[in-house]
Amino acid sequence: MRCQSGVEMEEASRTRASFSRRVLNGLLLCSGDMDHLDKYMKDKSFVLQLAVCGLRGVTRVILANNPLSGGLILTALYWASPWQGLLGTLGVLASTLTAVITGQDSVEVAGGHHGFNGMLVSLLMGVYSSAGDWYWWLLLPVFLGSATCVFLFSGLSSFLDHWDLPAAVFPFNIIIILYLLCTCPEHPYFPHHSVKPPGALEPNATELIALQVIRGIPLGVGQIFACGDLGPSLLILGAVFLYSPLLAVHALLGSTVGTLTGLSMAVRHESLYSGLSGFNGALGCMAVGGFFIFSLWTHLFAIASAFFSAYADIALSNLMGTVGLPACSWAATLVATLMLLLTGSLAAYRIPIGQVRAPERNLQLRSQWEAGNTEERESADV
Amino acid sequence: MRCQSGVEMEEASRTRASFSRRVLNGLLLCSGDMDHLDKYMKDKSFVLQLAVCGLRGVTRVILANNPLSGGLILTALYWASPWQGLLGTLGVLASTLTAVITGQDSVEVAGGHHGFNGMLVSLLMGVYSSAGDWYWWLLLPVFLGSATCVFLFSGLSSFLDHWDLPAAVFPFNIIIILYLLCTCPEHPYFPHHSVKPPGALEPNATELIALQVIRGIPLGVGQIFACGDLGPSLLILGAVFLYSPLLAVHALLGSTVGTLTGLSMAVRHESLYSGLSGFNGALGCMAVGGFFIFSLWTHLFAIASAFFSAYADIALSNLMGTVGLPACSWAATLVATLMLLLTGSLAAYRIPIGQVRAPERNLQLRSQWEAGNTEERESADV
Amino acid sequence: MRCQSGVEMEEASRTRASFSRRVLNGLLLCSGDMDHLDKYMKDKSFVLQLAVCGLRGVTRVILANNPLSGGLILTALYWASPWQGLLGTLGVLASTLTAVITGQDSVEVAGGHHGFNGMLVSLLMGVYSSAGDWYWWLLLPVFLGSATCVFLFSGLSSFLDHWDLPAAVFPFNIIIILYLLCTCPEHPYFPHHSVKPPGALEPNATELIALQVIRGIPLGVGQIFACGDLGPSLLILGAVFLYSPLLAVHALLGSTVGTLTGLSMAVRHESLYSGLSGFNGALGCMAVGGFFIFSLWTHLFAIASAFFSAYADIALSNLMGTVGLPACSWAATLVATLMLLLTGSLAAYRIPIGQVRAPERNLQLRSQWEAGNTEERESADV
Repeated sequence: MRCQSGVEMEEASRTRASFSRRVLNGLLLCSGDMDHLDKYMKDKSFVLQLAVCGLRGVTRVILANNPLSGGLILTALYWASPWQGLLGTLGVLASTLTAVITGQDSVEVAGGHHGFNGMLVSLLMGVYSSAGDWYWWLLLPVFLGSATCVFLFSGLSSFLDHWDLPAAVFPFNIIIILYLLCTCPEHPYFPHHSVKPPGALEPNATELIALQVIRGIPLGVGQIFACGDLGPSLLILGAVFLYSPLLAVHALLGSTVGTLTGLSMAVRHESLYSGLSGFNGALGCMAVGGFFIFSLWTHLFAIASAFFSAYADIALSNLMGTVGLPACSWAATLVATLMLLLTGSLAAYRIPIGQVRAPERNLQLRSQWEAGNTEERESADV
Repeated sequence: MRCQSGVEMEEASRTRASFSRRVLNGLLLCSGDMDHLDKYMKDKSFVLQLAVCGLRGVTRVILANNPLSGGLILTALYWASPWQGLLGTLGVLASTLTAVITGQDSVEVAGGHHGFNGMLVSLLMGVYSSAGDWYWWLLLPVFLGSATCVFLFSGLSSFLDHWDLPAAVFPFNIIIILYLLCTCPEHPYFPHHSVKPPGALEPNATELIALQVIRGIPLGVGQIFACGDLGPSLLILGAVFLYSPLLAVHALLGSTVGTLTGLSMAVRHESLYSGLSGFNGALGCMAVGGFFIFSLWTHLFAIASAFFSAYADIALSNLMGTVGLPACSWAATLVATLMLLLTGSLAAYRIPIGQVRAPERNLQLRSQWEAGNTEERESADV
Repeated sequence: MRCQSGVEMEEASRTRASFSRRVLNGLLLCSGDMDHLDKYMKDKSFVLQLAVCGLRGVTRVILANNPLSGGLILTALYWASPWQGLLGTLGVLASTLTAVITGQDSVEVAGGHHGFNGMLVSLLMGVYSSAGDWYWWLLLPVFLGSATCVFLFSGLSSFLDHWDLPAAVFPFNIIIILYLLCTCPEHPYFPHHSVKPPGALEPNATELIALQVIRGIPLGVGQIFACGDLGPSLLILGAVFLYSPLLAVHALLGSTVGTLTGLSMAVRHESLYSGLSGFNGALGCMAVGGFFIFSLWTHLFAIASAFFSAYADIALSNLMGTVGLPACSWAATLVATLMLLLTGSLAAYRIPIGQVRAPERNLQLRSQWEAGNTEERESADV
């Protein structure tokens, strides 16, 4: 009897284990790069393929590559503001379609590489526009700007390819600055808000509210998509977590570093509260976390990169603020590019740009590879 | 009798045909790159060789390479202002001679590659100088600036060579900006006009005059040589037509696109009337028309390039106008460089920099090459 | 007797000759790159090795590589201001240690390549700080800035390696600009002096004092280390002379050219008197003198480089002065990079970056190599 009961219990526990394993497998299927989806999508209609590569493009902004995360992020944007959500959707579609029309590499297009810059341009055009929501004329620069991103991405990729560097969000940063320069704040067709540098002195400075500053940390992750509400920002953080928990940790850590940097340089309180101090730090931290194999050493470099990005952002914001321009993510993009060029101990952990996956997967591939190496060495020793 | 008369008529028509063919041949000899002249010039005196490579240099500004066109352009400049004509002549000579002295590649020198930047620098120094015509001290910076262009051209060529990119008019753009920065508007020795950004609001804006705007389109071609009169501008356009009718069409088209862009961004009327809105568009359009084999596809890209150049010019002019600087042809040069880096369907039409000829000749060489390919394939099939 | 006396005299003269030879040899041992020291240092303690490579780093600023010169320069800095001397020492140590920790190439570290940018950043932070000497909080940015220089040096080296270009003082120029941008002049923690552009008009201009202008020439050499006192500047010049008399001549010549340039552009008298007009010219002249084999031809190019550096410095200072920033040594660094890219007759004299020694040694190696070539040719002829 006891024996039977033991067998039963074992079976029950097996069933439970298999159930939880199935749930876990399901979750794992939705997590990471979802390569298995590509095979499934091959014979589907063009519209469905476009949707998936658009959603992949949405996540490329945060160095992720997962259509479900993309869906979550789009939901967050529509939640924060339906107009912004619409602009983002149109931007990603416009630039992906331009890439298809101008005959860009189809693997790159399918991977969403041509969507994320267009999306960011559209979102930022919407945020800086002072003509209010649902100002339909704005779709004109949104379409033009998003389409031009493809040209810049393709040209810059050719240029940077020699050093195995990605074009990253350089196209977005260039196009949004050109757009804001084209249109002065009081422009008759496309007016926009003027930008106040973070170092500007406040006439009647109040006490710093600690809770607001802490609230700014998750907002820093949302500000990557120009989203300044807490709920949607947390949803965006959740989308990063779905792709890779490790990347989400880097995002939060980087945003914290960015906020600390802002405190150390006594920037305007507004900048700390809104998360604008944090988002360059978050991007700089995620870039090292994403493009290098995770290790204690890499982690220290990621923190250094976050600090450097955040300080450079304050500097560039002060510089560009003198002509009323925002620094966007210039700082993080430049610092990330620098980190990828680094020689020395960090270079040993670098993954070639074409082989970058979710950090967990990178780690696994490395372990397998190293295990293989050890085995080989052992068998050679024998 | 009838037969004889028929023979006579045939002969007469033959004579006429041969005469018109000879005229056409004569015109064709003067058109295009005039490679045949090089053989003829080989044993001529140094002064004559210098004159020819100087005239070739004059046309390099508009991506042409024809000494007769160069002569026409110089005539146009002397017509518009003898002082400007003199400055242009001195500039092209100074930089060509510097190239000879510093031992630059003789084929490049003979092709006029070292003349055009010096010429532009001299012309622009003359235009921006507020000391009036025939201010002889200006020859000092004109000589120095033109000579320095050779250094920049040589250095930048080494740098850009890796991507098979030309140094283009980057040297001119750099030197003229450095010169204007060196001398503030109220400089005791070299005073210059301050530049007003095109996006500056006009206090008492008047109605836009359509005829003036249309007049600005050919002026846009003249503004490439800093020439703002209609007659000389048309002569310059004629010089482009002599080199290559296709390039002339691109020039006019680009200038039109630039003017449209200016209208869409509501720039100052002055900017539209003077052709300053158009010349970056014209250059951007000509660059794609000149560096790529002509086709419907390339033509669309040329228009896109014109739009992008013109918008970027407005943006850069507004930015540089905040410190009183002109944007020169930075926009068109950067956009043209970007187009040359592009991957995708446009890249298939790209001609290696060393093999670029007049667009018509490029087209012909391509047809020959393709015909040869087809024949080969056919013979292989048989 | 006569014979004996002759022998005695010969012996005495031999003794004298051998003595003066020994002194000369001793001096020669202390001069140049002191490669023999490296062998001697191999088994010494880490602290001693760090000191030597730190001192080598100090001299890298002026394209020298000699620990004794480094000692002299540090002495000069402590003489001018103990606080500045301390900052310089900490800067060079901080960045050298960061290079060791981040695993940079040990040969490069030993050669002092990772020290000089950190030192310059620290010195300039001290000079621009308006909080007065012995403001200990300044050590925070000094450490951070010096450490970041290593990242920039490593990344830029990877980038520029393709053209065999050195990262030179680009890292210093970038970091100091970012630091000054981060902190506005009235910053609560790190206030700094605002910079006045050299082209700014003086309200009550006085007569130019010739003696003061001449005094500015040696000061121009001292200003490379942000040192504005005559005594220490002369000591720094002496340190350059110890490394290489030829380089010292180039330094003085370049500073003279820079001062002439300043006169020709009518810059503020202050700029001429303090040596700030001269130091970019000096650096530009030394760069060509140091990276190319000495000859009449190279010498002319060195003077051209000095002129170009000095003019570019005035231009950049005027530009960056509009936002209250100094131009540092951007002009000289950019011009030197350009000179290294040059094709034509100068390129024949260029020494590969890894093989650059003291100019005298370069000349000697070239002569030996050429003599070898001639001998070979002669033996081949026989």
